[in-house]
Amino acid sequence: MDEEERQRREISDAHRQELNRGSVVLASLLALQTPGYGYALLETLDKAGIPVAGNTLYPLLRRLEGQGLLTSEWDTTESRPRKFYRTSRDGQRLARALLAEWRQLDAALESLDTTKGDES
Amino acid sequence: MDEEERQRREISDAHRQELNRGSVVLASLLALQTPGYGYALLETLDKAGIPVAGNTLYPLLRRLEGQGLLTSEWDTTESRPRKFYRTSRDGQRLARALLAEWRQLDAALESLDTTKGDES
Repeated sequence: MDEEERQRREISDAHRQELNRGSVVLASLLALQTPGYGYALLETLDKAGIPVAGNTLYPLLRRLEGQGLLTSEWDTTESRPRKFYRTSRDGQRLARALLAEWRQLDAALESLDTTKGDES
Repeated sequence: MDEEERQRREISDAHRQELNRGSVVLASLLALQTPGYGYALLETLDKAGIPVAGNTLYPLLRRLEGQGLLTSEWDTTESRPRKFYRTSRDGQRLARALLAEWRQLDAALESLDTTKGDES
C-alpha cells in the first residue's frame, strides 16, 4: 500500500469512527433496557452490527452510570462478582430523545443523497 | 429550572451533540455533490434538518478540503470573493462508504429498540 493510499485510509477510518461514536451511547441505552453485564452488551452490540472495543465500552458504561443514565448492581452469586447494568428512567427518556434525533438525521441524510442509482 | 434539571439537560445536550457530529461530515459531502458556497451549505443543512453553526461548519470545510475530500474555487465575479466547494472523487467515495455505514448503524439501532409501542 503506497503512502497516499495509507493516508486516504487513515482519513476514512477517522471519519467512520466519528460516525460510529455517537451511536454507541444510544445503542447501549437501548440494549440495556434488558439488564446485562458489560461483556454481554459487547456481544449484543457486535451481533447487532455495532462493534465496540471493551476498553471503549467499559469506561463508557461507568460514565453513563455516573450521569444517572444507567443503574448497576453487583451480582455476587459467582466467585467473581460482576456488575450488572440497567437503563434508568432518565436513560430511557434520553434514549427516546436520541432515537428521535437519529431518525431526523436519517431522513435528512436520505434527502441529501441526490445521487441514488449513480454509484459508479 | 432547578440544579438537577439543569444538569440533566447538560448531559442530554452533550449526547445529542455527539450523535450529530458524525453526521455533519457525511451530510456535507452529500450536499456538495452539488457545488456551493459555505453559507448556502449552512442553509441546505438547516433546511434538511441538520442545524450547524457557521463557526463549526467553515473550519470543517477547510479541514475536508485539506484532506482532499472537497475541492474549492474562488468565485471572483462579485466584489467580495467567495469560496465555492465541491465534493471530490475521494469525497464521493467516502460519502458512499459512510452512508453504507450509517445504514448499517440504523438497522442495528432499530433492532436494539425492543420497546416499540412502550414509550410511557
